[in-house]
Amino acid sequence: MTSGARRRMGVEERREQLIGVALELFSHRSPDDVSIDEIAAAAGISRPLVYHYFPGKLSLYEAALRRAADDLAGRFVEPREGPLGERLLRVMGRFFDFVDEHGPGFSALMRGGPAVSVGGAVTPEAATATHALIDSVRLAAHDQILSHLGVERPSARLELVVRSWVSLAESTALIWLDGRRIPRAELELQLVHDFAALAAVSAAHDEGMAELLRDILAAEPADGPFSDLVGRLLGLAPAPVV
Amino acid sequence: MTSGARRRMGVEERREQLIGVALELFSHRSPDDVSIDEIAAAAGISRPLVYHYFPGKLSLYEAALRRAADDLAGRFVEPREGPLGERLLRVMGRFFDFVDEHGPGFSALMRGGPAVSVGGAVTPEAATATHALIDSVRLAAHDQILSHLGVERPSARLELVVRSWVSLAESTALIWLDGRRIPRAELELQLVHDFAALAAVSAAHDEGMAELLRDILAAEPADGPFSDLVGRLLGLAPAPVV
Repeated sequence: MTSGARRRMGVEERREQLIGVALELFSHRSPDDVSIDEIAAAAGISRPLVYHYFPGKLSLYEAALRRAADDLAGRFVEPREGPLGERLLRVMGRFFDFVDEHGPGFSALMRGGPAVSVGGAVTPEAATATHALIDSVRLAAHDQILSHLGVERPSARLELVVRSWVSLAESTALIWLDGRRIPRAELELQLVHDFAALAAVSAAHDEGMAELLRDILAAEPADGPFSDLVGRLLGLAPAPVV
Repeated sequence: MTSGARRRMGVEERREQLIGVALELFSHRSPDDVSIDEIAAAAGISRPLVYHYFPGKLSLYEAALRRAADDLAGRFVEPREGPLGERLLRVMGRFFDFVDEHGPGFSALMRGGPAVSVGGAVTPEAATATHALIDSVRLAAHDQILSHLGVERPSARLELVVRSWVSLAESTALIWLDGRRIPRAELELQLVHDFAALAAVSAAHDEGMAELLRDILAAEPADGPFSDLVGRLLGLAPAPVV
């Protein structure tokens, strides 16, 4: 009665299962190389049954992408407790977990690959939908960071720092995937340091940012990642002439 | 005899003229909104004659994109003279000139818009070609920066700094275009400062980078943009307790 038990899976449950199976496959190979037959086999159902739930590979790919986007946006959620540096470091850890789990799929998507090539030529509507999904994740990350900074209406300069940093996290992850030549733990810490560095450059140009940065640093413990950066930077300075 | 004089334009000359006219139009509006009729009118020739030189809007768009890519890559070329900070500042000035001239087109392209939507659904080959073109500009910028640093075989960490900075320049320009809320001169200087900041963070993690950064800073004049940053950052520090 195994197949009978399988057939008893509800519509939503079956769709969710297929999305999970597809996401796993799309994460590790180019969507062009993943066939519906393979998805059916991995889900333990027939090819026609896959088509019963999804009209084609593109719609399954889009559903998988939506789930991945929700998952990624969720990794930026972090309790508003403790110093900012530690929070950002935990967020970066989860971000790199995601990048690690979905490596080739993440890389291809961010480089505009599969989003436009699943199933041959793709309509502008599908491409636009994919880009809107990527932007929604960026926006979720951006909003999370602002809420950690306790800012509701960011100035243009703070907005720039946060959006630049989200984009830096993306590009750093893509460069990491391209050969994994630097240990990811180092990059996670470095990105937290990059946040402080971008904020410091902006603060050097703008009094509002300077005030915000002073508040952030005042709340940092001596053994946190931000103080760690200051210590490292001081270590770079030439020894004072006595 | 005006039209006779026009007809005497050589094939290559006419193609170049059409590419120039198309680039101008594609720079300011979405390629979807630019018609072949409009391009023909702006070039002062008939619609069928446009088709004589380019099989369709997509091929004209691709040629315009190629010219824009060559132009942009050229703006990163800078004589190897004088301190690095000043050189990067001049490069950023030319980069923002380009972004300013091609605003909406640059923005739409980098967000994956027109590249995939000119003339409705587009083949994966066309999308891949567009991405390859964007990557070739990134690579040209990257190679220029490395040659200014006097480095032929960059370490993984230097590679990361340079690629991250190129990507930061892109995202900063896109954010600037989205409302132009910060004066571009400030952003040009800030990006030069960002380069120093990213290099400093990397140097805080890596001895090779620290050595390179010390060499760069040693060659900087007291009134250059890098020293300017150090001065601004010191101004942020709380007054020492006496």
